[in-house]
Amino acid sequence: MRLVAFDKSGKPGLGLRQENKLIDLARLDAAWPDDLADLLRQGPQAMVKLREQAAAAPVSDWQDFAGLKLLPPTMRAGKIICLGLNYVDHAAESGFTKPEYPVLFMRAATSLVAHDEAIIRPRCSEQLDFEGEMVAFVGKTGRHIAKADALAHIAGYSVFNDASIRDYQLRTPQWTIGKNFDATGGFGPEFVSADEVPPGAKGLKIQTRLNGAVVQDANTSDMVFDIEETVAILSECITLEAGDVLVMGTPAGVGLGRKPPLWMKPGDVCEVEIERIGLLRNPIRQEG
Amino acid sequence: MRLVAFDKSGKPGLGLRQENKLIDLARLDAAWPDDLADLLRQGPQAMVKLREQAAAAPVSDWQDFAGLKLLPPTMRAGKIICLGLNYVDHAAESGFTKPEYPVLFMRAATSLVAHDEAIIRPRCSEQLDFEGEMVAFVGKTGRHIAKADALAHIAGYSVFNDASIRDYQLRTPQWTIGKNFDATGGFGPEFVSADEVPPGAKGLKIQTRLNGAVVQDANTSDMVFDIEETVAILSECITLEAGDVLVMGTPAGVGLGRKPPLWMKPGDVCEVEIERIGLLRNPIRQEG
Repeated sequence: MRLVAFDKSGKPGLGLRQENKLIDLARLDAAWPDDLADLLRQGPQAMVKLREQAAAAPVSDWQDFAGLKLLPPTMRAGKIICLGLNYVDHAAESGFTKPEYPVLFMRAATSLVAHDEAIIRPRCSEQLDFEGEMVAFVGKTGRHIAKADALAHIAGYSVFNDASIRDYQLRTPQWTIGKNFDATGGFGPEFVSADEVPPGAKGLKIQTRLNGAVVQDANTSDMVFDIEETVAILSECITLEAGDVLVMGTPAGVGLGRKPPLWMKPGDVCEVEIERIGLLRNPIRQEG
Repeated sequence: MRLVAFDKSGKPGLGLRQENKLIDLARLDAAWPDDLADLLRQGPQAMVKLREQAAAAPVSDWQDFAGLKLLPPTMRAGKIICLGLNYVDHAAESGFTKPEYPVLFMRAATSLVAHDEAIIRPRCSEQLDFEGEMVAFVGKTGRHIAKADALAHIAGYSVFNDASIRDYQLRTPQWTIGKNFDATGGFGPEFVSADEVPPGAKGLKIQTRLNGAVVQDANTSDMVFDIEETVAILSECITLEAGDVLVMGTPAGVGLGRKPPLWMKPGDVCEVEIERIGLLRNPIRQEG
């Protein structure tokens, strides 16, 4: 099942996409929420019911998908927890050693942009770097989740461009500010339910392209901490709630690690593609 | 004006407190939101209207404040941005130099507890440390806010105990996990509107007491980055939205800086008091 957040004349809409058609959840039942995180908070049973309703809907309820303006899959995640240095080769290029514990920071919703929306290079820095990543959505709330149970807590996946303002990120030991500039976190195009990919979304090709040139090329199996381990480690400390978002870290190839560094600039187009999950494309624009 | 989040038979309520009486906002008008961040999102005009309605309410609409179970002032902040090392003396005791740029991390709502609720020492660590702090609430959305305009964006203040699991905080260079354990962020007792304190809440005594003994004793004027500067610096990068929360850092005296270290343990009571803003008290309990 593929769910898409889209703009409905200025209001958020949530739809189920099949090929080139989409059905607005509000058309199935006005009580469905208009944000994915709110839907996930209703638990796995709601997803089953939604799937049944969509299967039973008449053809006339489906609209064309083409031309819709997408929104980030959710703007109301309870929390967005991001992993740093979670691919061995990227940790090495960044001058860090392979971590023995996940390196974690958070993003706020103000930093998110949708598929086909512009990632903004701010006035104060030219060091805008790309980071192609996989997203996992928490679909079932839990604390102290065993590794063996972890995947039952993941409802689905998406694609992220964790674009970073490097000089601000490294200005203090805490990366938070450089990871939270407005309109830097490309997110989408859509939510893909867990049953559409291998368990833990393992073995999927993940690739970042800048103006068509491949700049990151890896496999989701190369993560230091896979989804199961991440869920287990995080939930030792924190309740993972349905509607939370985990951003799983980036492989080697970022602009910071190159000589000279490769920064994204206005007019560029950055794509992050994960096999079977989707292609996230963002043009780069200068802050007005 | 003092606003209190409280438990209404299992649902969140929002009330305006005067002395030992409280009026439920829902009694003034059923359309008022039940969360402070949602109220702040309605902008400064809503606060004016609320004040007028409360002043006009009959005495019979006010209920006794005593005995109410409080909730954290908001559970729906858009983001909770915390400053580290923001008092010179605390930076020194932590082995860091005075920062030239704010050291920033985020907290998630899952880490919050209300006044009189227990801060939980987790199973996995005994290094539970106190950090008395002041909170500023964003009341007006903005980006690129000049220092001179910053206070117009702050609606009010509260008190925070940024209790930290030190070994987890320092396990990697990113502090996020050690600052986000469930039920570690004491928050309250209430929201105090900006007009009740000096501009920028400067010159207020801030004190932390553990089992009655003073462990932190400072003045809000001793911050490295005051509210105006913090708002200006953050908003260069990030849109500060009405309903966001800024947690302004802790002064010297934390348990980590002592020899031997002083950790909070089950049965302890920790109080953080800021002159004219309030007294936040949390007992410490062991995770079950």
